[in-house]
Amino acid sequence: MRILGLLLFLSVTMGFSQTSDKQQIRAIYNSSLTEGKSYGWLNYLSNQIGGRLSGSLQAQLAVDYTKKQMDSLGLDKVWLQPVMVPKWVRGTPEFAYIENQSGMTNNVPICALGGSVSTPGVGIKAAIIEVKGIEELKALGRSKIAGKIVFFNRPMDPTLIRTFEAYSGCVDQRYSGAEEAGKLGAVGVIVRSMNLRLDDNPHTGAMSYGDLPVESRIPAAAISTNGADLLSTTLKLDPKIKFFFRQSCKQYDDVESFNVVGEITGSTYPNEIMVVGGHLDSWDLGDGSHDDGAGVVQSMEVLRLMKVNGYKPQRTIRAVLFMNEENGLRGGAKYAEIAKNKKENHIFALESDSGGFTPRGFSFDSSDANLERVLTWKSLFEPYLIHVFEKGYSGADIGPLKDKQIVMAGLVPDSQRYFDYHHAQNDIFEHVNRRELELGAAAMASMVYLFDKYGILPN
Amino acid sequence: MRILGLLLFLSVTMGFSQTSDKQQIRAIYNSSLTEGKSYGWLNYLSNQIGGRLSGSLQAQLAVDYTKKQMDSLGLDKVWLQPVMVPKWVRGTPEFAYIENQSGMTNNVPICALGGSVSTPGVGIKAAIIEVKGIEELKALGRSKIAGKIVFFNRPMDPTLIRTFEAYSGCVDQRYSGAEEAGKLGAVGVIVRSMNLRLDDNPHTGAMSYGDLPVESRIPAAAISTNGADLLSTTLKLDPKIKFFFRQSCKQYDDVESFNVVGEITGSTYPNEIMVVGGHLDSWDLGDGSHDDGAGVVQSMEVLRLMKVNGYKPQRTIRAVLFMNEENGLRGGAKYAEIAKNKKENHIFALESDSGGFTPRGFSFDSSDANLERVLTWKSLFEPYLIHVFEKGYSGADIGPLKDKQIVMAGLVPDSQRYFDYHHAQNDIFEHVNRRELELGAAAMASMVYLFDKYGILPN
Repeated sequence: MRILGLLLFLSVTMGFSQTSDKQQIRAIYNSSLTEGKSYGWLNYLSNQIGGRLSGSLQAQLAVDYTKKQMDSLGLDKVWLQPVMVPKWVRGTPEFAYIENQSGMTNNVPICALGGSVSTPGVGIKAAIIEVKGIEELKALGRSKIAGKIVFFNRPMDPTLIRTFEAYSGCVDQRYSGAEEAGKLGAVGVIVRSMNLRLDDNPHTGAMSYGDLPVESRIPAAAISTNGADLLSTTLKLDPKIKFFFRQSCKQYDDVESFNVVGEITGSTYPNEIMVVGGHLDSWDLGDGSHDDGAGVVQSMEVLRLMKVNGYKPQRTIRAVLFMNEENGLRGGAKYAEIAKNKKENHIFALESDSGGFTPRGFSFDSSDANLERVLTWKSLFEPYLIHVFEKGYSGADIGPLKDKQIVMAGLVPDSQRYFDYHHAQNDIFEHVNRRELELGAAAMASMVYLFDKYGILPN
Repeated sequence: MRILGLLLFLSVTMGFSQTSDKQQIRAIYNSSLTEGKSYGWLNYLSNQIGGRLSGSLQAQLAVDYTKKQMDSLGLDKVWLQPVMVPKWVRGTPEFAYIENQSGMTNNVPICALGGSVSTPGVGIKAAIIEVKGIEELKALGRSKIAGKIVFFNRPMDPTLIRTFEAYSGCVDQRYSGAEEAGKLGAVGVIVRSMNLRLDDNPHTGAMSYGDLPVESRIPAAAISTNGADLLSTTLKLDPKIKFFFRQSCKQYDDVESFNVVGEITGSTYPNEIMVVGGHLDSWDLGDGSHDDGAGVVQSMEVLRLMKVNGYKPQRTIRAVLFMNEENGLRGGAKYAEIAKNKKENHIFALESDSGGFTPRGFSFDSSDANLERVLTWKSLFEPYLIHVFEKGYSGADIGPLKDKQIVMAGLVPDSQRYFDYHHAQNDIFEHVNRRELELGAAAMASMVYLFDKYGILPN
């Protein structure tokens, strides 16, 4: 009888608990979809401020704006974390053309990669050689490469259903292409844009010269996918064509910027800290709506949804808007450094940095036990068409928080359109659908709610 | 030992079978994503032909084009099924304004509902009364309604995650609003567009006068969601405003059109027929890319993917491009009528008519046994992020094929953006993403492949 009584008690409690979780999640979704603020905030960030490259005026305006908005939410604390960030400036619009042996030219759309040096003021004109990647470059060696512009043209693999995997399979060309080509005496690098679509938009992104001495650093630019196909075809017809490009980008000294942090302090376990975040900086070509305006406003919305639904978290929940994810990750490093110095106990961190598209689920970088517990919540998400709960990458900004205990998670939105816009001039507000954005915020808030309520399992 | 041997045999066979299914589905996806034809076909249908309302020149061009394309696929048979269809023509652009008591006017965007009568040439100007639906209309009764324009303004419910449910919850206003208002002596009907977004695009769609005598039929138009909000706000400020609208649409006699059918005849069970289809007609305002150009080209692509992968179906597989789904469903009825007359045995029918967005799964109108069998295939679809396998609606065009045996299915794409475009001038090619369309075609082909291989279970 005692055991029966206990079972009865447990099933009633668990039944009640499941019901109250269902109701809470329904309330979160209803708020997000009927009076959500994420889309309005994104409108301001995108259309009133615009692209927010680290160290720019726009980045500072975004800090001011989001702090002010969080101040208005009635949180327990809102503050700025100073952080020194790199300042790279694109300068005048880049220009490039293909020139055949009789001197006829075809302009092609390019943009400097973030962190690249400029060309000389008159540009660079040189023979150009196509490679499919860094291995092929190295195999060709100095004799074939020196004095030339290297054209990295390995496309994203369209057969990969998860487009981020296709991105991972190519991005080494962009990140390290100039370093490796510079070692072999190349004079410039042109990289096929990381875009699954054929169009005229060049896609920028971070690159690094590694340890290369300053005199070996060569300018690097991305070319649109249509431009890359034209260049490749032209090269096949006539390997003696020349390529011209000119860019005037420049790296300045580091400047001060800020992470923006808003907090609802936990009622029961204030020292157990949960982070939900995105990055406030963006590239400069578009307005950074998907990357990562979406993640920023969704993170703010998570706190707002808690407040508006009268939910008082047991644990401390912070929205962290990280500065400088795109070209330095200084904000993420700084946040983790401060947390470590203060001996803060972070138990959970969730990042949204994969675009404001329909959420499909979450990836988890955590112990198996915690992932298994998440799987017991699956049915709570089913009505919202959230199906993906898997081991995987969480997010760059929260990465430095990783330790043995913490549960790290990333929102997994539908990824099919992401690289149409990623780091390009068409990453703009009109390409974000309001409902898709709001559903993402609601999914994040629901997951935060569950981790707040149930905590994490120890290792 | 004999039992062990049998188990071993079974597990090897089943293992092999699962492996070969995996490989076949991978091959289907690879073809669709690397050399798929669906997007190119859709480009032609949308940009070279355009909106394809039944009875229009464009509808005939679409019949000719798709037949020619299917002729080029090396199918066993391609043919046209003649069918008489209604011919309704929009006429000159509609015009509407709100007029306050001092005669000041505000233009608002409207479009005639499909099947509506015209206004008199000089338009209609009358007092306007807002209702939230047909019940409220009836409750108000003739004394409040006669002589007025009725404004149906119940919005789609944004808290429903599946937007088609929100559509179902509103569409009676559009379909039957004029019939019910006409019975009470109203002089016109204005219906809030079935759109979850606030914008300036009116959304057309089918309406019916039921048995209403010709003299009681009143003109009906959709107003954009922004227009509806303006009208509602203005009415609250001043219930005595008048509303003016003018439209010159006209219903002509029925004309001949066609379903387009392509077939790969089954090698083993040619008399077991499987249909995959969409509808070739569309509304006239946009180019019908999502509704239902996407379903048309995906259905053609299913057959092409079979051919290009050298798959020889055991059963007969037909792509059926139905005419006149939007305002009559004559093509669907005709196809089923012919099938019945010929005593054809249809075992499976799959429709794609929910837009060319990322596929999320399938809904099934079938016996429980067949749905349960589909669930055993779930893991085959998991790598392609296809998670939804549920009981539900299949499709309008295949509806008339329903009998006790047949398995009916509908492709379930992500639905968040669908009603941004549905039946409006912005349902155009540029709002279809190539990969999302191709993933849908591959999902459909994979499901057809499995049903071809394993057949259906008897009731």
